[in-house]
Amino acid sequence: MKKGVLRCGHVQIRVLDMAEALEHYRDRLGLIEMNTDDQGRVYLKGWTECDKYSVILREADEAGMDFMGFKVDSDEHLDALKQDLIDFGCEVDELPAGDLADCGRRMSFVAGTGHRFELYADKEQTGRWGVGHHNPEAWPENLKGMKATRLDHCLLYGEDLESTFKLFTEVLGFWLTEQAMDGDMRIAQFFTCSMKEHEIAFIKSEGNTGAFHHASFYLESWQDVLHAADIISMHDISLDIGPTRHGLTHGATIYFFDPSGNRNETFCGGDYFFPDHPVTTWDAAQLGKAVFYHSRELNDRFLSVTT
Amino acid sequence: MKKGVLRCGHVQIRVLDMAEALEHYRDRLGLIEMNTDDQGRVYLKGWTECDKYSVILREADEAGMDFMGFKVDSDEHLDALKQDLIDFGCEVDELPAGDLADCGRRMSFVAGTGHRFELYADKEQTGRWGVGHHNPEAWPENLKGMKATRLDHCLLYGEDLESTFKLFTEVLGFWLTEQAMDGDMRIAQFFTCSMKEHEIAFIKSEGNTGAFHHASFYLESWQDVLHAADIISMHDISLDIGPTRHGLTHGATIYFFDPSGNRNETFCGGDYFFPDHPVTTWDAAQLGKAVFYHSRELNDRFLSVTT
Amino acid sequence: MKKGVLRCGHVQIRVLDMAEALEHYRDRLGLIEMNTDDQGRVYLKGWTECDKYSVILREADEAGMDFMGFKVDSDEHLDALKQDLIDFGCEVDELPAGDLADCGRRMSFVAGTGHRFELYADKEQTGRWGVGHHNPEAWPENLKGMKATRLDHCLLYGEDLESTFKLFTEVLGFWLTEQAMDGDMRIAQFFTCSMKEHEIAFIKSEGNTGAFHHASFYLESWQDVLHAADIISMHDISLDIGPTRHGLTHGATIYFFDPSGNRNETFCGGDYFFPDHPVTTWDAAQLGKAVFYHSRELNDRFLSVTT
Amino acid sequence: MKKGVLRCGHVQIRVLDMAEALEHYRDRLGLIEMNTDDQGRVYLKGWTECDKYSVILREADEAGMDFMGFKVDSDEHLDALKQDLIDFGCEVDELPAGDLADCGRRMSFVAGTGHRFELYADKEQTGRWGVGHHNPEAWPENLKGMKATRLDHCLLYGEDLESTFKLFTEVLGFWLTEQAMDGDMRIAQFFTCSMKEHEIAFIKSEGNTGAFHHASFYLESWQDVLHAADIISMHDISLDIGPTRHGLTHGATIYFFDPSGNRNETFCGGDYFFPDHPVTTWDAAQLGKAVFYHSRELNDRFLSVTT
Repeated sequence: MKKGVLRCGHVQIRVLDMAEALEHYRDRLGLIEMNTDDQGRVYLKGWTECDKYSVILREADEAGMDFMGFKVDSDEHLDALKQDLIDFGCEVDELPAGDLADCGRRMSFVAGTGHRFELYADKEQTGRWGVGHHNPEAWPENLKGMKATRLDHCLLYGEDLESTFKLFTEVLGFWLTEQAMDGDMRIAQFFTCSMKEHEIAFIKSEGNTGAFHHASFYLESWQDVLHAADIISMHDISLDIGPTRHGLTHGATIYFFDPSGNRNETFCGGDYFFPDHPVTTWDAAQLGKAVFYHSRELNDRFLSVTT
Repeated sequence: MKKGVLRCGHVQIRVLDMAEALEHYRDRLGLIEMNTDDQGRVYLKGWTECDKYSVILREADEAGMDFMGFKVDSDEHLDALKQDLIDFGCEVDELPAGDLADCGRRMSFVAGTGHRFELYADKEQTGRWGVGHHNPEAWPENLKGMKATRLDHCLLYGEDLESTFKLFTEVLGFWLTEQAMDGDMRIAQFFTCSMKEHEIAFIKSEGNTGAFHHASFYLESWQDVLHAADIISMHDISLDIGPTRHGLTHGATIYFFDPSGNRNETFCGGDYFFPDHPVTTWDAAQLGKAVFYHSRELNDRFLSVTT
Repeated sequence: MKKGVLRCGHVQIRVLDMAEALEHYRDRLGLIEMNTDDQGRVYLKGWTECDKYSVILREADEAGMDFMGFKVDSDEHLDALKQDLIDFGCEVDELPAGDLADCGRRMSFVAGTGHRFELYADKEQTGRWGVGHHNPEAWPENLKGMKATRLDHCLLYGEDLESTFKLFTEVLGFWLTEQAMDGDMRIAQFFTCSMKEHEIAFIKSEGNTGAFHHASFYLESWQDVLHAADIISMHDISLDIGPTRHGLTHGATIYFFDPSGNRNETFCGGDYFFPDHPVTTWDAAQLGKAVFYHSRELNDRFLSVTT
Repeated sequence: MKKGVLRCGHVQIRVLDMAEALEHYRDRLGLIEMNTDDQGRVYLKGWTECDKYSVILREADEAGMDFMGFKVDSDEHLDALKQDLIDFGCEVDELPAGDLADCGRRMSFVAGTGHRFELYADKEQTGRWGVGHHNPEAWPENLKGMKATRLDHCLLYGEDLESTFKLFTEVLGFWLTEQAMDGDMRIAQFFTCSMKEHEIAFIKSEGNTGAFHHASFYLESWQDVLHAADIISMHDISLDIGPTRHGLTHGATIYFFDPSGNRNETFCGGDYFFPDHPVTTWDAAQLGKAVFYHSRELNDRFLSVTT
């Protein structure tokens, strides 16, 4: 948190059919349905999250990610970051409070990779769902499905990793935690502003602009990853890969698709970060192992994205 | 244990290079090296096993399984089973005590699927390794690699599942626990003589005689399956599939290959059996899910065997 | 299963208030409520059990165990065991089919420790709850509370362990798996007729007749033991001890009380047994560690029982 | 990290016998022995820590904690914090680089609770032990004992929680994450400068000055907490309590003592923090549950400390 950015705070995902999507995100992933706005967007959260929501579903004709939002710790930092973005050359749209339900004003901009991001400092807080903050029990009973605890990060595909690197490290104050290098070219870059190994990550992909690889949700344990995989099978959800482990970050993971074709990840564990930690580097020649630590090879589907 | 057969007691596996094989079975799987006989065969066991060994490695020019042995609870049952085998039409070779180190006389015969099996009633007991049976600690420290706890079962491929079904259920007193059915044809049959969901299993495979799919070793937990997968990657062991779960038996599993190309499984959990339990049946149309519960499809490698 | 006894098949427990008891056994332990008979007894089971029920709750003025029943594999064995019991000196009451709902005739008798046991060969089978035996999923969703998978065993207190030892090993064909010895006196004896380390166990307790220490239920994993402990706290259930491990059997466990004061155990893991295994012996001087492996001392409550 | 303080970076613990202490911290906790200085102090670390060490053992006549050090992200912040401490009224001793092996200059001061703390900005980095930062494997093989991954935090006892609250929140820029309140009096205060629920915590204890409750080490999983408890028993280490869970932070934990009587904790899981999270409050009336979530009562030993 070098410049006041706290974390990956929300992601707006386009889904082809809201009823199917809700069944997936609420009943299978186990997110809590919190709200619907007058545009029909549905707001959900993982039970450990204190803010009111972290996932916004919007029904549309095409799957993909509309934008990803980062929460900032103060209005002062928000204004300063707006100016820094402008100075960096970004066009910043300031969206008014309430445009997104229960959320303050947002600074929206597009990165070199073609992805739209936004910053905001205020969102209604409803506290940890089902347990609260006064003599809180360990966890709420009656969680559904995979019992996802929180939105954790997103992985995105694009071409221009170079300017996006500058954007995240110099303008937004993130740290580079891990990277994959093909000679001098950075082909994967993982950024954080917290102790998490990544709040956002990018993989170089020629010809892709604004491509969405996955939104990731954190689980309590490796047993929960197994149970997530079981639920995927019980409900004929399309599996990408897993359970397995990543080399990058070492998280234990499973990839699968929502009914619209957006990829989700649920995972547990993995490395942690402090700002004085050295960057972890994987060689391009080891990219298979870096991504899928056990099979040590990329599957064909790893290249598929929604946009 | 209808007719005195206790369990899958040992398997003799052919390996191309003993030093490499030992590194694999001892240092990676974590079996305990117990003995070497004057033929150069090496005897190993999982730490929870009370008998002196359960895996015999024999160096040879071709990988595969020489034979699998079942322990019988008494000499009387052993003699009775010999006669029953002869009556069933098997040619039974009685091997003298000591032919296999520290093991009593063995009754050797070939099933319709072309696999050689044997029965024996005596083997030297050394007790649980590292903990014993007097005020025993929970587990021995300094176990290696995957910390395999025991040889659990083998899966074999062959054509003649019909006569082998009769052999195991009628002659040897096993129970059928699970099966996959293609119409009226049984294409997978799982047998037990204990509470384990399988002591041995067969999959129908045209053109295969005496084919060895895998020997399986039991792990304490799903976390140990993850660590087994990690060790596979750390030591560049050839992975087949996993971590995942089977539909048949519901064990949580990983398949991989020893340096000679013999497939191993390490797994945990799964269903249990009592003799009054109904048989579990999977339809051939669901065979992918029956074998690999999460991906719901057979991989090509699943057909590969050593003989 | 030397003489046809399969397993600990059911236990009838006296509870002071049925509504409270049901909330406990169904909503907290997660047993499935299956039936109520015309006496008001309620029948429940763990979801992995194939028979229709394993726990019978009877409302009464005093807590404790009415009887524990063992399932036998055939009517022939049932009749033979009846005669063997009579020859041993037991008074055997034959109860007609239907006296217990959906259960065949039962042979009821009292052991030297004052506990009433019974044998039966028939009980309606409803199969694994929620998953069945045809292309079965890994587990049923919407299990409640601790998600107990099965009744596993009971631990009983009494004086006359000697004749009860003979009864179980010589008459009923159980094996002694573990024991605690005070010199020549056996102060704890664990018996099985399966691969489980105990189907029933006794601890010597002067002055206690027919005393009930606990009924035990099996959980999938150590994570489930933690969650069971959490549920105990969330619902202000009286905790005895745990999570911890036993030395005897090495199961990982938690003890707590139902609203009537009957002790329950939920546990996972632990050792397994085959009939050729040596007996495990704990010295009386190590009894604390034998019972509670981590604290290495008996708590005061360990002596409390219901009768 | 409001003012540049990164984390709890090291703790110096007094031990009565270095050989016994090393056996405990290296072979039982599984810390890596890194160095010995010319005063005979031994330096150790958890394998995931990038800095060279986090635990310093000093042989002395009395057990307890000498000091706890927090790493700062820059020399500029270090100097600013020094001045802020002086302005707050602390006497600050600047210790030269090298006074502690491989560590830069340190600013040492005493809090109102009587504990000595220090800040430093430089320490030699050796990277993650056994895996490094270039194509790193998931974990190093041959870790010992409990496989502690890192020093996580310390819990201290003292009287003057009020001024220490100001010191940590106002001067050092920590956030209050959790507290226990007895009416208006804060009797427990948990502080963090990271995403961890606590880097340091204090409990009010009349008559105690500079008292050391425990140093805590992070484990990978709840299975590792069980194995830690097993190791405690195998080596006759003095157990305080556990395995269990805390209400405060919800970590799953075990407390035990080193051979000198200093308390250690190993734990896993628990809540996480972001600077916009509300403070979690436990009522004094619920203190038992706040500390030991399962038993819901403080044990006598919880009051014992070393100084």
